[in-house]
Amino acid sequence: MKVAIIMGSTSDLETMSGAFGILEDFGIEFEKRVISAHRTPELMFEYTKGLKERGFGVVIAGAGGAAHLAGVAAGLTTLPVIAVPMPTKNLGGLDSLLSMVQMPTGIPVATVAIGGAKNAAILAAEILALSDKEIDGKIAAYREASAEKIRNTVI
Amino acid sequence: MKVAIIMGSTSDLETMSGAFGILEDFGIEFEKRVISAHRTPELMFEYTKGLKERGFGVVIAGAGGAAHLAGVAAGLTTLPVIAVPMPTKNLGGLDSLLSMVQMPTGIPVATVAIGGAKNAAILAAEILALSDKEIDGKIAAYREASAEKIRNTVI
Amino acid sequence: MKVAIIMGSTSDLETMSGAFGILEDFGIEFEKRVISAHRTPELMFEYTKGLKERGFGVVIAGAGGAAHLAGVAAGLTTLPVIAVPMPTKNLGGLDSLLSMVQMPTGIPVATVAIGGAKNAAILAAEILALSDKEIDGKIAAYREASAEKIRNTVI
Amino acid sequence: MKVAIIMGSTSDLETMSGAFGILEDFGIEFEKRVISAHRTPELMFEYTKGLKERGFGVVIAGAGGAAHLAGVAAGLTTLPVIAVPMPTKNLGGLDSLLSMVQMPTGIPVATVAIGGAKNAAILAAEILALSDKEIDGKIAAYREASAEKIRNTVI
Amino acid sequence: MKVAIIMGSTSDLETMSGAFGILEDFGIEFEKRVISAHRTPELMFEYTKGLKERGFGVVIAGAGGAAHLAGVAAGLTTLPVIAVPMPTKNLGGLDSLLSMVQMPTGIPVATVAIGGAKNAAILAAEILALSDKEIDGKIAAYREASAEKIRNTVI
Amino acid sequence: MKVAIIMGSTSDLETMSGAFGILEDFGIEFEKRVISAHRTPELMFEYTKGLKERGFGVVIAGAGGAAHLAGVAAGLTTLPVIAVPMPTKNLGGLDSLLSMVQMPTGIPVATVAIGGAKNAAILAAEILALSDKEIDGKIAAYREASAEKIRNTVI
Amino acid sequence: MKVAIIMGSTSDLETMSGAFGILEDFGIEFEKRVISAHRTPELMFEYTKGLKERGFGVVIAGAGGAAHLAGVAAGLTTLPVIAVPMPTKNLGGLDSLLSMVQMPTGIPVATVAIGGAKNAAILAAEILALSDKEIDGKIAAYREASAEKIRNTVI
Amino acid sequence: MKVAIIMGSTSDLETMSGAFGILEDFGIEFEKRVISAHRTPELMFEYTKGLKERGFGVVIAGAGGAAHLAGVAAGLTTLPVIAVPMPTKNLGGLDSLLSMVQMPTGIPVATVAIGGAKNAAILAAEILALSDKEIDGKIAAYREASAEKIRNTVI
Repeated sequence: MKVAIIMGSTSDLETMSGAFGILEDFGIEFEKRVISAHRTPELMFEYTKGLKERGFGVVIAGAGGAAHLAGVAAGLTTLPVIAVPMPTKNLGGLDSLLSMVQMPTGIPVATVAIGGAKNAAILAAEILALSDKEIDGKIAAYREASAEKIRNTVI
Repeated sequence: MKVAIIMGSTSDLETMSGAFGILEDFGIEFEKRVISAHRTPELMFEYTKGLKERGFGVVIAGAGGAAHLAGVAAGLTTLPVIAVPMPTKNLGGLDSLLSMVQMPTGIPVATVAIGGAKNAAILAAEILALSDKEIDGKIAAYREASAEKIRNTVI
Repeated sequence: MKVAIIMGSTSDLETMSGAFGILEDFGIEFEKRVISAHRTPELMFEYTKGLKERGFGVVIAGAGGAAHLAGVAAGLTTLPVIAVPMPTKNLGGLDSLLSMVQMPTGIPVATVAIGGAKNAAILAAEILALSDKEIDGKIAAYREASAEKIRNTVI
Repeated sequence: MKVAIIMGSTSDLETMSGAFGILEDFGIEFEKRVISAHRTPELMFEYTKGLKERGFGVVIAGAGGAAHLAGVAAGLTTLPVIAVPMPTKNLGGLDSLLSMVQMPTGIPVATVAIGGAKNAAILAAEILALSDKEIDGKIAAYREASAEKIRNTVI
Repeated sequence: MKVAIIMGSTSDLETMSGAFGILEDFGIEFEKRVISAHRTPELMFEYTKGLKERGFGVVIAGAGGAAHLAGVAAGLTTLPVIAVPMPTKNLGGLDSLLSMVQMPTGIPVATVAIGGAKNAAILAAEILALSDKEIDGKIAAYREASAEKIRNTVI
Repeated sequence: MKVAIIMGSTSDLETMSGAFGILEDFGIEFEKRVISAHRTPELMFEYTKGLKERGFGVVIAGAGGAAHLAGVAAGLTTLPVIAVPMPTKNLGGLDSLLSMVQMPTGIPVATVAIGGAKNAAILAAEILALSDKEIDGKIAAYREASAEKIRNTVI
Repeated sequence: MKVAIIMGSTSDLETMSGAFGILEDFGIEFEKRVISAHRTPELMFEYTKGLKERGFGVVIAGAGGAAHLAGVAAGLTTLPVIAVPMPTKNLGGLDSLLSMVQMPTGIPVATVAIGGAKNAAILAAEILALSDKEIDGKIAAYREASAEKIRNTVI
Repeated sequence: MKVAIIMGSTSDLETMSGAFGILEDFGIEFEKRVISAHRTPELMFEYTKGLKERGFGVVIAGAGGAAHLAGVAAGLTTLPVIAVPMPTKNLGGLDSLLSMVQMPTGIPVATVAIGGAKNAAILAAEILALSDKEIDGKIAAYREASAEKIRNTVI
């Protein structure tokens, strides 16, 4: 199963690219795409509706401000949707966070930290690892490496 | 031109009904409907896309929490969309407000106060009054009555 | 019908100028003016009172901090007033936003995003387009161009 | 010199009445009035412009939400204006507070606590006491009584 | 695969019980347990460490205030951990939300809305549905029923 | 009557110096001093207690973070105390603002905008002008000049 | 060593009384007193200055709004001062929290949760336990009882 | 008794190093260590559990975002734990603050200001000074020097 990474604007690319390296390291195939829930509603509709049968297992959606991308995606597919609230210039991303996390009953979105694209990728990997031993092993190794690095840190 | 009042849930009805009386007083025809951007995306799509040719001039959208209704509507029509952020139990409606007002460039939403359904109706009337002298007169009378009431208040 | 763009201070000019290009592109005539609700109350009074008969259809008001400009304008005219909350150095514009959007019943203000001068102009255009087919067509073209740009984005 | 107490709505009366008893106790004459900066701009203009020559020394203005009353008053008179931000149902009065306190350079407003009508009255008294020994004595007595009460509290 | 629902206190039970009915409806086996990251760290350690080999696939953790339960659980297992921020009496749950969602890189937590226990259960179901056609069908049916209910709502 | 300007730290000097020029322009004598309510409580006590008999009429207190300076001063004198919340690096001055403005009943503080040292000086002038025609005239002239500047602004 | 519990108002008593039972259970002697940093500055001064030689080891200070009590106490003694921010009606205690925790360098205050009087007492006990084996044993027993209760909870 | 300074990441080192100089000046021995509650839970467990018998008297924990380090440490030892909320890029450290200070009843954490590492060290010193006259004297001298510096400041 692949991961679809969508973002509302090219200005989100720098933050969202944090997810790319993680998925590559874990050997998870992904597709990345700029799609706007507001400016390209038809594309949003068709793209998200088609994800399941195209072999995707998880959607990662990054957007800022009145960040509707993840919620709208979640209404169009029953795949797990992970939301990455973008930092915003004026409100620090609190607007993005609340716009994403406060979803109404029935249509959940799995929100990670403001700017947390890397964690979105790790979460996607954890989800896919439930039915993929190889990814599971890679997450364990990643964790151990991360722990080892801290244990060896001398300050 | 008519006004379409949409809301994300029947729980928004009490607040949104504040708009009904105003529009009736101003003699503006309106239609009200529960539509969810998340739970009924197809309905959302069709309903909003069809508004202009069905003779609507303004959309009023009330929603709470991760309130995407107004923004999604605004992406599907070029009619002016007025957003009414619902008060929310835990965050007082700050989540609804930020989810509605912080729209990205290109797709504006006209946001009124948290719970401000009456003002949404008055704003809709002001917009329609630009090409309807009768409504214009009614707004002026409403304003004058409201001012008169204050001028006569003795405390 | 023309659009009046007022702002509380010359320091708002850079942000507000985002509206100028949009209106020019849409072929909408506009007038821009620095007026302070606090420092020039008489000017505020006369200027706003005279807008309707001078052929204006929409007011766009940009202000920051205790941003009273839009609300005071809305009390002096029944034209639709669009509020642009200025970003502020210390509170990011949350003060401007709340000062503008939380208007009392009777006097609505159509608030757009913090710093959202471009969207204010587009919203003004959407309002004027209700009785102007040409503007309506230009908005549709703007939208389509914006969607096309996203559809063609490869990342 | 007298104190003018203005409020934006009769719904502010209960909170604002906290100021009445204090002023009566201090023997300071006051006038109370509902005036709306938005709904009765002409009244606002005339009333505030006339305060100085009618013998007023201080203005106390209570309002809620997009609370422009104090700021607009301050633009119309050079008398000291004390702002009382009303508690609000949805945002607790944070909106009122920011709308009042964040005034631009040139037009100050003296803001007290959310709902702090009593303190507004005491502050008015402190201002008037600068040229009135009697009020000065009453404030000192009030303070001493308040301190004595705490010193005698056994818990 | 089963779902483990943990909560920091019995006072979280009422909110968290929203998840029970959903999981039962979807035919997903779950275990519920009060565990405190602070008061029972050993239990936390052992319980979470043992989840994977006991056949659990997803953890749902509900906690309030300085809500560390989800984050600590996420550090002890590589299973996906879904966080439900509890509403809090004083800050509405904003403290719970920020304590859960703002996790550091490496240890993601999938945060849902404040008080969003039902959505946590649906999200868990979406995750498990990736490898369980039966759950997938039930989610689709749940969605369709929810949409149908809205489409049939007359107001 | 003179104005005493106190500040909690030399780091507040740059912001507070905004008040100096205003007072000089208005011909109001002032004294400026670094005093900490926390680090120099005895000095705070003696200095503030002595202000009235040394001929001061107003206190301006600037402080940041847990900004107690104005409130503590207000407890030690019955002169009007004007509070200037300092902008803070992490919270933008919201902490300073709330620490100053939310005073308990009995001890008011007149709070101006975050960083609003100039307005504090103007407010002090307005207070002193109640018994000083010359200052009153200078405020009127300042206002007129400020209005004239706006009226002449061409953008 | 004894614990001094001070609070700014009798209205804080109910919340603060949470500390009494804890200290009694731990066999720690304490004194409780209403003292206002603003209304009784002399009492504040003398009382706090005298604590150390009267055998006190820790101060617990509870206050709300512009909560200066703990910070002012900390400036008057070098004993550890624990701050309990009171919940407030309008802002939930966020004002109390920021007023207490954001102390400037040099004068620390140990802040616990909004309304966290019980934890203030436990923290005081932990501090005193460093030189008192008996208290240390009682804290350990309290912790174990609290853990046992959770381990035995069946839901 | 020694002080243990732990931090969640090397990125916290710069801020936390503010504590080092203070402790050195006061002649208090300390150990500093990077430990993550999330990435190295076993290390966290063992390290904190062993502090008391290794002769430590106070723990200072610095962390940012969903800052669980102090709370988790407090659950593993009955030594007083002082929390230093790290400033964060997007939310200024409000997330760190709330994640640390809002601890549940039973497990207190002594929170200082955002970025307040120096004050954490002084607070630790105040705690240790209760049974160490030498430290007590050094704190008094530090305070006096700090007061003297302010008294001598001429601006």
